[in-house]
Amino acid sequence: MNTAPLNIVFHGQNAANFRQGFEALIAPHHRISDLSDGLDQPGERTLYENADVVIGIQLNSAMPQPLKARLFHAPAAGTDAIATALLPAQCVLANCFGHERAIAEYVMAALLMRHVPLTRADQDLRQGRWTFWAGRPSALRSEMGTQTLGLLGFGHIAQAVAHRAKSFGMRIHVANRSPISHPLVDQSWTLDGLQAFMASADAVVVSLPLTDNTAGLVNARAIAAMRPDAVLMNVGRGAVIEEKALYDALMARQIGGAVIDTWYQYPTPTPTHKTCTPSKFDFAALDNVLMTPHMSGWTAGTVRRRQETLAENIARLSRGEALANVLHGPR
Amino acid sequence: MNTAPLNIVFHGQNAANFRQGFEALIAPHHRISDLSDGLDQPGERTLYENADVVIGIQLNSAMPQPLKARLFHAPAAGTDAIATALLPAQCVLANCFGHERAIAEYVMAALLMRHVPLTRADQDLRQGRWTFWAGRPSALRSEMGTQTLGLLGFGHIAQAVAHRAKSFGMRIHVANRSPISHPLVDQSWTLDGLQAFMASADAVVVSLPLTDNTAGLVNARAIAAMRPDAVLMNVGRGAVIEEKALYDALMARQIGGAVIDTWYQYPTPTPTHKTCTPSKFDFAALDNVLMTPHMSGWTAGTVRRRQETLAENIARLSRGEALANVLHGPR
Repeated sequence: MNTAPLNIVFHGQNAANFRQGFEALIAPHHRISDLSDGLDQPGERTLYENADVVIGIQLNSAMPQPLKARLFHAPAAGTDAIATALLPAQCVLANCFGHERAIAEYVMAALLMRHVPLTRADQDLRQGRWTFWAGRPSALRSEMGTQTLGLLGFGHIAQAVAHRAKSFGMRIHVANRSPISHPLVDQSWTLDGLQAFMASADAVVVSLPLTDNTAGLVNARAIAAMRPDAVLMNVGRGAVIEEKALYDALMARQIGGAVIDTWYQYPTPTPTHKTCTPSKFDFAALDNVLMTPHMSGWTAGTVRRRQETLAENIARLSRGEALANVLHGPR
Repeated sequence: MNTAPLNIVFHGQNAANFRQGFEALIAPHHRISDLSDGLDQPGERTLYENADVVIGIQLNSAMPQPLKARLFHAPAAGTDAIATALLPAQCVLANCFGHERAIAEYVMAALLMRHVPLTRADQDLRQGRWTFWAGRPSALRSEMGTQTLGLLGFGHIAQAVAHRAKSFGMRIHVANRSPISHPLVDQSWTLDGLQAFMASADAVVVSLPLTDNTAGLVNARAIAAMRPDAVLMNVGRGAVIEEKALYDALMARQIGGAVIDTWYQYPTPTPTHKTCTPSKFDFAALDNVLMTPHMSGWTAGTVRRRQETLAENIARLSRGEALANVLHGPR
């Protein structure tokens, strides 16, 4: 190994999630430092300012500046809290995916749960009651595989969902900004056909990022187009579904239900602020929503795949090769 | 349509599950009669004895005999309660599958449930607690797709499970009486390698029928070979897993858990006998088993697919063509 050693810093609690075992993934002569969110411990400021590689999710003008950095790598998909104007001219900003398999498992688990009543069957059989026992019309359940899945957005996440859903025999409908032609997709619409798309599916999964174009895209009119028994899921960003429209539709039982993982309000991520309601509306009072805390992508597999992306980009930087997942720079 | 009209009888409660809408699936000149289990209502005996086609799951010497029948069709896979010696010489016995998609959905739902803690996450977030929120090591969950699924038996059901599990990225191991070479299967054993197979998987799904060779096949020794965190599922027949060995292993927390749909004791299927414990051992006192009441195959889709099999065989009989799913006859 004759490349120069790199100074790599893991900045803050979020980056620390990707630290365990990282040495084993990179060349042994690189130096790794673990820095606090505040960068206020002895020596941290200097280490940050002299880092060749920063792994972190935040950069703003109140922080020291990573003047020497050639790679600022978010260990996440979202880089909203990284002010690219503060990156030095030679620096590249990159991000990580690797969450799509985890999110697809969450989506399929939540969809299947609506068809296979495992929890209730178990509770009943423990008391000797054979509810759902085969052979009686009253015990018949529905089948996911005969249904149509609507995917709003068709990026990494939606494609992973489509691949799994198709193995169950589901029909796959997609609505996307640009037209989609893909072997897994049975029918697709652009966004001017959003109403028709929403009306076509038994379940609609939103996996769009939040942008000026997607904020509130799923509004009262779009929800009103859904089938009365259809379910609306959000694993993208909360505000893509208009908050009041979603709450009103569930309150009025206008749709079959919702599965919401991405929300409108989040706790401050400090040890002292752990409880927070996820919306200004009282979703917790509704029985037709499954509420989860923005967890869908958070698995050991996601961490491992993101570590591999980070390590691969560090190896490429060492060798002077083009990096993967570049979002910005060098200027 | 110039074929002769057929007299078709649906015999008993079980067959009645497949009756709704059946006219629409067959030629309109056939005659359908709906008969009680006891065949003791006025005219029922004559209709049964003169039927060309009997749809039912039971034939024994205490019943009238279907002397004219050319097709005795179980609307189910199992035909244990049909005494083939009582079928007239010209009669063919056929059965139905069509449950494999439903069972595969049950299996995948039960597997995913062990990785994606939807119910607990929902309960907690309703109280403002963001348990499992992404970004913290304590919230990391496991991923099904990185695991190995063991399939004991590789018939219709196991193949449907393998197809879905592979779409999640799972590694597929199979143990089967005869060697298996199949594009979905990563590694396979014959039954003399049962111990090694059991030791190789994160989850073992039993889908074997009950025969002299399979009864008690999964015994204490086979279960002891499993990984301490592995889960054992049964969607085949209860007695393929040795009852006491399963209970003892769960009691001793020797394996990660079990998901049991097929049992050792069943209620008498009459309106007055609806409760019954599913084993002489107290599985209901264990927290490491998911207990369901032989429900895995019972969906609207299974009923529809079996109706299609019944209708197709009736059409073939009309046209004098070879029937599908023949188990016996004509003599």
